Amino acid sequence: MTDSRRTDPPTPTTRRGFLHTVGAVGGAGAAFAAMGALGLAPAAASATAPPFRAPRASDFTLTGRSAASVAVVGAGVAGLTAAYELRKAGYDVTVLDARPRIGGRSLTVRGGDTLTDTEGVTQRARFAPGQYFNAGPAMLPQWSLSTDYCRELGVPLEVFSVSNTRTFLHDPDAPGEVRAQTARSDAYGVIAELLAKATDGGALDAQLSAADKERLLEFLRTTGGIGGRSEGWAYPADPRLRGFAVNPGAAGSPGVPLPPPGSLDRVFSRQVAYHWLLDSGFDMASTLLQPVGGMDRITEALADRVGRQRIRCGVEVTSIAEGPGGTRVTCRGPAGTGVLDTAYCIVTTPPLVAAGITGLPAAATALLRTFLPEFPAKIALEYRRRWWEDDFAIYGGITSYGHDSSLWYPSHDHHSGRGVLVAFVEGAENTLHRLSPARRTEEMVRRAERVHGPKARAELASSLSVLWGREPFLESGWQAADMEHNAVVNSAAFRPLTEPTGRVLFAGDWLSNTLGWQHGSMASARRAVERVHARALAG
Amino acid sequence: MTDSRRTDPPTPTTRRGFLHTVGAVGGAGAAFAAMGALGLAPAAASATAPPFRAPRASDFTLTGRSAASVAVVGAGVAGLTAAYELRKAGYDVTVLDARPRIGGRSLTVRGGDTLTDTEGVTQRARFAPGQYFNAGPAMLPQWSLSTDYCRELGVPLEVFSVSNTRTFLHDPDAPGEVRAQTARSDAYGVIAELLAKATDGGALDAQLSAADKERLLEFLRTTGGIGGRSEGWAYPADPRLRGFAVNPGAAGSPGVPLPPPGSLDRVFSRQVAYHWLLDSGFDMASTLLQPVGGMDRITEALADRVGRQRIRCGVEVTSIAEGPGGTRVTCRGPAGTGVLDTAYCIVTTPPLVAAGITGLPAAATALLRTFLPEFPAKIALEYRRRWWEDDFAIYGGITSYGHDSSLWYPSHDHHSGRGVLVAFVEGAENTLHRLSPARRTEEMVRRAERVHGPKARAELASSLSVLWGREPFLESGWQAADMEHNAVVNSAAFRPLTEPTGRVLFAGDWLSNTLGWQHGSMASARRAVERVHARALAG
Repeated sequence: MTDSRRTDPPTPTTRRGFLHTVGAVGGAGAAFAAMGALGLAPAAASATAPPFRAPRASDFTLTGRSAASVAVVGAGVAGLTAAYELRKAGYDVTVLDARPRIGGRSLTVRGGDTLTDTEGVTQRARFAPGQYFNAGPAMLPQWSLSTDYCRELGVPLEVFSVSNTRTFLHDPDAPGEVRAQTARSDAYGVIAELLAKATDGGALDAQLSAADKERLLEFLRTTGGIGGRSEGWAYPADPRLRGFAVNPGAAGSPGVPLPPPGSLDRVFSRQVAYHWLLDSGFDMASTLLQPVGGMDRITEALADRVGRQRIRCGVEVTSIAEGPGGTRVTCRGPAGTGVLDTAYCIVTTPPLVAAGITGLPAAATALLRTFLPEFPAKIALEYRRRWWEDDFAIYGGITSYGHDSSLWYPSHDHHSGRGVLVAFVEGAENTLHRLSPARRTEEMVRRAERVHGPKARAELASSLSVLWGREPFLESGWQAADMEHNAVVNSAAFRPLTEPTGRVLFAGDWLSNTLGWQHGSMASARRAVERVHARALAG
Repeated sequence: MTDSRRTDPPTPTTRRGFLHTVGAVGGAGAAFAAMGALGLAPAAASATAPPFRAPRASDFTLTGRSAASVAVVGAGVAGLTAAYELRKAGYDVTVLDARPRIGGRSLTVRGGDTLTDTEGVTQRARFAPGQYFNAGPAMLPQWSLSTDYCRELGVPLEVFSVSNTRTFLHDPDAPGEVRAQTARSDAYGVIAELLAKATDGGALDAQLSAADKERLLEFLRTTGGIGGRSEGWAYPADPRLRGFAVNPGAAGSPGVPLPPPGSLDRVFSRQVAYHWLLDSGFDMASTLLQPVGGMDRITEALADRVGRQRIRCGVEVTSIAEGPGGTRVTCRGPAGTGVLDTAYCIVTTPPLVAAGITGLPAAATALLRTFLPEFPAKIALEYRRRWWEDDFAIYGGITSYGHDSSLWYPSHDHHSGRGVLVAFVEGAENTLHRLSPARRTEEMVRRAERVHGPKARAELASSLSVLWGREPFLESGWQAADMEHNAVVNSAAFRPLTEPTGRVLFAGDWLSNTLGWQHGSMASARRAVERVHARALAG
């Protein structure tokens, strides 16, 4: 690993979804900018919609079989998916991974596991039996290949709550916490009030017909819970929308309302925008899923189907030489240096790790070096008691601490005694990376205490942190998720990686349009497998 | 049952949550109308917020014990909760229920169950083993007593998805379906665009300071995904917010966008408002929960703790006489007529059923007759294959067919082969009640076909419908949920039911501030138990 990999990305590191959304205006969204809903998308537009076609089930199949040999570098989601699909078509597959276990970033930590980072710092997980910590990916979109593979592989799924309106928005610059339910209701209610006033006052007469105005006013009144014209369209801060301080109960107990909304800069704070966006994107919108028992159920199931004897962990690939008849992979393992000669090779390590492999085509290596890694961290806080359920009635979801970190509550095994909270920190390079594991824990407990009080400290049972920038042979969480990425990977300039002419192919979420998602790794792996297969059958 | 109970309520029957919200403006919300967020709630208001106090866990306890005898009429949620809490304090409890099984409206139907309605129509459930149908309540708010009792009773919980953005909004008056994700993104995006234009154009300068305007514009730009000032604040219909026709995949597959938003009357249609409101209320907002294996796990666990020998089903109470030393309950069972003499009696049947019991205080009976029942229906459609998961990637949530019916997808046992969809119909009195079970099924299959195509018919395995207006000894789903209800049940006029001076007490969700929720039944039951206990200890 070179130091240059550790420099901060040129843009400020912020929340993935946030960037997707905010950045989208200048990126993929630009193509649509000319056809905004007002005026340019007339009623007739809906008639041009193609008839709905149900998305296909997981039905990736290769026609024809081949016994050609393929080396797959990396036993993460992309590598194992590629190996699995190649095996189905008869290929002789060997998977090599430098890490001591399979899965790559799809890392689920359980009690007894030991992790040593690139600085030589070792942590041993002391979680109780049955507890687990998804240190990498945590959720699956319904429409994703990762969900499709769970069906195909028989991995049971359950709902993963991202947007729980009972979680808190914590603003480090302002006192007091507000539940997401209240904040979202207030923000939208005030927006409805303001827009209703402006519309009814004639400010939008140039854009809206009289009928459109009435339709809009009715929509705002209904969805925003605001008063009608005679009430001045006022947002009444109705507790049945924004929640109660004490919930309604028996007759005689109508509930106790919360304090009214604060000033406009609180109503429209960054924290509110963060929670609003949390489930706004096509990728994070509810409903999301997770494998029952841990995310590694997917990679373990893939490895079972591939055959464990075809997967070699602890083997680092140092060079890949390409000749007219095949590839020669040189690697270094516990037993020394060796070579593996195969007809094809698929490289699935993170791009900057792949860039360190010698012998690859120069054009490919140059492109691999252009990726900008991000260094998120996840810190598991195991508690003896699920006080967030018992005392705060929070079952899953995410509490935001501000724009760069958040606390995730488990969506499973409710009321089961122990539980693991996950603190998620983005752009961790400049903060947590300087701290020992114990001090990382202390920092995360301190943040949890600010929202939840002393039990966030008193009931802690154990802790473990994963800094993705320091995970051996991965050295990153994902690549910088600005919208330029999609434009670039889909462009002709990226063909040395996406359409290589030789026998070495590349795959990973970083060669997809869904950075940081297993879906992208799987889609990219399938693409690489299709190319190998086309060449193998062509002879 | 008299015919008068079957008349339609005087107000149009619409969706519960919808009514809560829309009605709130004139009801409970009125108290807050004077302190809208603009101007009247200054920044300093947040300083007046009381310090946050975590809601208490289920810690209902009675101090002192009594061996006094109590008859509980009705073995539904309210009755069983009352009996359970009374048993904990030592009371000699007898529960009577006219229905053949416990649970009341918390009815979970499994294969082999037989149901006969008030018209003598019998249906036998033919669901496969492992399949179930929650014909009554289906979800638990996190903050509710029903969730607390699951913890106390050891009933495992899992997430119940209400708002799944991959479900469809179906407008019977307009062709084509749109996913909720797209509809919600478009509605909010256009709102953000319009409000940004009006704000930036100066239309709200009387209400907003320059700093407020900038804050609002930034919030709208971020959350709505709209362009900035230089782009005219246009909503670009970004597929990363509204979803894709074909989702993004590997490099080279950036995704295929959906058609642009339609005309404003489609963007702001009733269907969009319905889905928007679905999870907007304090009661329906995510995250919701359900017992693993069926809603009746709660009532069955309560009955186990009460002791089955104390619960007598098939016993109809016909009169309750009250004397200075106790009550005499006259009932009719399989073995003929009998009497039960106890110190106290708690009546938990639906109010119009209770009104049919003779001997109750006239003031109480008069009030019981004022309730306005609603007659919803649920129709289970069991399918041989979960085509909504396999072919539409819908895992839980609700598709709206319009304002009076919807289709609910299961949130559990994903990818398990068979599954049960639940069609929910409100105000069913005038439609389904005239049809045979087979024709009800046909009607629901027809609606599902309009959204999902022929597999909604071809893959049907079995069906069963429950019309709550025709369930014996219940004869209603819930009571009309207008906001006046809370005002009335909390008022002095209702004291003959809520604070009776004699030995007969009343409980049920209809005597609570959360109509139609088990939480209300439980809260009301606890209140009645507290009153019994206070009197018993006072001698």
